[in-house]
Amino acid sequence: MLNKIDHIGIAVKSLDEAVSFYETMGIKPYHYEEVDSQKVKVAFIKVGESNIELLEPTSEESPIFKYIEKKGEGIHHICYDVEDVDKALETLKNDGFKLINEKPMKGAHHKIVAFVHPKSTNGVLTELSMDEK
Amino acid sequence: MLNKIDHIGIAVKSLDEAVSFYETMGIKPYHYEEVDSQKVKVAFIKVGESNIELLEPTSEESPIFKYIEKKGEGIHHICYDVEDVDKALETLKNDGFKLINEKPMKGAHHKIVAFVHPKSTNGVLTELSMDEK
Repeated sequence: MLNKIDHIGIAVKSLDEAVSFYETMGIKPYHYEEVDSQKVKVAFIKVGESNIELLEPTSEESPIFKYIEKKGEGIHHICYDVEDVDKALETLKNDGFKLINEKPMKGAHHKIVAFVHPKSTNGVLTELSMDEK
Repeated sequence: MLNKIDHIGIAVKSLDEAVSFYETMGIKPYHYEEVDSQKVKVAFIKVGESNIELLEPTSEESPIFKYIEKKGEGIHHICYDVEDVDKALETLKNDGFKLINEKPMKGAHHKIVAFVHPKSTNGVLTELSMDEK
């Protein structure tokens, strides 16, 4: 059911500063986006079949701002590409996993996404994602 | 220089318990290994071109035991596959990045690896890896 790692989300204070590691390694971000609902600016960097998603808060109300305040910069979540988010949620729920989203929602970059609670997944905030149909 | 995400290392208290998420998603670990130098048992789970590396401490001396005590279970590091670890380290050092290993060393699974300090990479402990020649 997990096709690939779609992306790894990393909470950073500054996109401009955080891209320097990838640029030194020869890769520039291919896309920037502002996600109003999460109050973040995002930079996408392609690595093989996956992406690094750098997340910079644009407001103190952003969950990413609060994350950085509490835990510091670092990896925020893993997102897996799946064929069918609804089906994956149902399978996980039936096996007793705790979901953050019972129903998929619209994410950035024309994706349909849902989150599984990190309490169910060994502290890893886990996102499931598929392309919008 | 970064070919792909080789693996994501996740610190867990119990491999047996942690594999359940992947098994529910239809993927069983394909390899188990004990790494004496790190005092960990490791399970590898293939997801697309990448792996999830679950790390369970086998002793209170393990850095993974200390990590879990301090921060709880969760993502411990990202490892990128590169063509030439020596060259990548030299490039990073010249650009002012702080390295944990100035020289590559033998890692698990017949790989040559080195770590970049998380202070240089926005809180993300970053491993670089290539196949043993």
